[in-house]
Amino acid sequence: MIKIAVDAMGGDHAPEEQVKGAMLAVARIPDIEITLYGDEEAIKRHLTDETRIRIVPTEGVIDMGEKDPIGAIRSNRKSSMAVSLSSVRKEENDAIVSSGATQALIAGAHMLVGRMKGMKRTAIAPVIPTVKGEMILLDAGGNIEIRPEFMVQQAYFASIYAEEILGKKEATVGLINIGTEEGKGRPLDNEAEELFRKDEHIRFYGNVEPKEVLNPPCDVLISDGFTANIVMKTIEGTAQGMGVILREELTRGLLGKLGVLLVYRNLKRFKKRLDPAEIGGAMIYGLRGVVIKAQGSSLSEGFANAIRQAAEIVRQDVVAKVGRIIESGAE
Amino acid sequence: MIKIAVDAMGGDHAPEEQVKGAMLAVARIPDIEITLYGDEEAIKRHLTDETRIRIVPTEGVIDMGEKDPIGAIRSNRKSSMAVSLSSVRKEENDAIVSSGATQALIAGAHMLVGRMKGMKRTAIAPVIPTVKGEMILLDAGGNIEIRPEFMVQQAYFASIYAEEILGKKEATVGLINIGTEEGKGRPLDNEAEELFRKDEHIRFYGNVEPKEVLNPPCDVLISDGFTANIVMKTIEGTAQGMGVILREELTRGLLGKLGVLLVYRNLKRFKKRLDPAEIGGAMIYGLRGVVIKAQGSSLSEGFANAIRQAAEIVRQDVVAKVGRIIESGAE
Repeated sequence: MIKIAVDAMGGDHAPEEQVKGAMLAVARIPDIEITLYGDEEAIKRHLTDETRIRIVPTEGVIDMGEKDPIGAIRSNRKSSMAVSLSSVRKEENDAIVSSGATQALIAGAHMLVGRMKGMKRTAIAPVIPTVKGEMILLDAGGNIEIRPEFMVQQAYFASIYAEEILGKKEATVGLINIGTEEGKGRPLDNEAEELFRKDEHIRFYGNVEPKEVLNPPCDVLISDGFTANIVMKTIEGTAQGMGVILREELTRGLLGKLGVLLVYRNLKRFKKRLDPAEIGGAMIYGLRGVVIKAQGSSLSEGFANAIRQAAEIVRQDVVAKVGRIIESGAE
Repeated sequence: MIKIAVDAMGGDHAPEEQVKGAMLAVARIPDIEITLYGDEEAIKRHLTDETRIRIVPTEGVIDMGEKDPIGAIRSNRKSSMAVSLSSVRKEENDAIVSSGATQALIAGAHMLVGRMKGMKRTAIAPVIPTVKGEMILLDAGGNIEIRPEFMVQQAYFASIYAEEILGKKEATVGLINIGTEEGKGRPLDNEAEELFRKDEHIRFYGNVEPKEVLNPPCDVLISDGFTANIVMKTIEGTAQGMGVILREELTRGLLGKLGVLLVYRNLKRFKKRLDPAEIGGAMIYGLRGVVIKAQGSSLSEGFANAIRQAAEIVRQDVVAKVGRIIESGAE
């Protein structure tokens, strides 16, 4: 049995959608057991089926708009997020899924799960839907401390993840850049490019301009934490803005209104294909355990997808596989 | 009469679309005269109306995929791009519009038009269609040399442009960042933020995350040349990718195919609203003259829009207005 901790109190619709998501996941995935961490009474209000689900009561919630993420974890050691993270370190669970505040989750994972031996920095890596399938974008966590050697370790992680979880064969890594020619970009990009080219564990595609971001020639797109976070948020902003404009234009005029009725299902599928919640959450790379950040706005389906993803990462033993590469290079 | 130089040979569809665009612009804008620079014979093939249009023959074209933009200009002084740029320096023309290679145009503008007195760096500033209207994004030129004081001067330029050309009242400037709180981002961002806050010529909105990029709370979004170029290309890539997925999904099934026929005009309007060519080109800020980069893929309509924009910048005397601010700060 794969044991998964669920932070039931994090997220815009917690605990309802988290609890429902957990029930959905258990019903669909035969080899998992879930522990819900949170307010017992609030959880029980939504928990209609306790098959392979138990509750561990916790006190307090990490606020979503946390300004001081490290402080938030330190002063809320009994919160659902802190206790569920700790359960992974104590090997009571194999993975933890949370829709809580991103920066608090990253900070808490550092403190309470701990970094993998030899791994210099953690990273957060959302999986993005593209025209052709799925792509990993990292480091989307907004780490502003940047060194090319961090990016190399993160690329190891992403390559293994792309192969083991996304089913990519011989996963390739592209460096996000302002031009495709060799030597483009900032000194950081040039140094990273050089390290990528000579690293035997990385299949380096080369520089990739983000005008290919939804139709990328590689499986992983990497940059520093500032740039990749900007790319992720620009994708989100463009998709949202285009959605608004599409809605405004489609519903104009009588023919438009009629046509929209006919393409209603098609538009729903379109929206679904672009919905990151369909894929699951974003894994935090570089920890001693599996920590998945599900979207704050997750509904039960999205949250169940994040649990499925966590289980698969445990099943494929991704963390140990990456660990072997990191340790082999750390001698 | 406003005199506009047109580089007739730059662009994917040159000189045909450039020549047709020039004729369209002259027909629509009564106070302009155009000089077409390029291969006389090739131009004449498309020039069916010479009203207020003349030709200056030039030799050679700057290649679109130019690896060494400075070298390309230096070794092609008789090219349409070089001669048309020089005509602005010589005051034979008030503005120049080119669909040629961006980096070559920036380099050529530096060498042949020259930087404005006191202006530390040039920048390229596309105008982006948003949910609510238009927004200026800069520096999208991919300058990797970055200093916060360059960004301040560029913000002066963008503010004047937003007010005089885009009709924004009391234009506001936002700093592209990974979070909205004060002090977010890299040291560069913090320094820029501080300079923006205390500058009397800039109405600083604060930090803006690019998840608002198509629905921004301000009129100008600014970052360094690397980041803004990445944002611009991510918008482009997301819009393209979403367009492909939308097309795939809408045309599925019989109802879908029928519905698409009904919403055909609506989809065309949707596409048009997102088309940057509808707005014109991107101005290169910080020069002694008006230099407009029209899209490489420009068709006649888009190119005519870029000419209209160039004429309006001359009419509103944008360069002189910015010059007064720059010089007042340069004492």
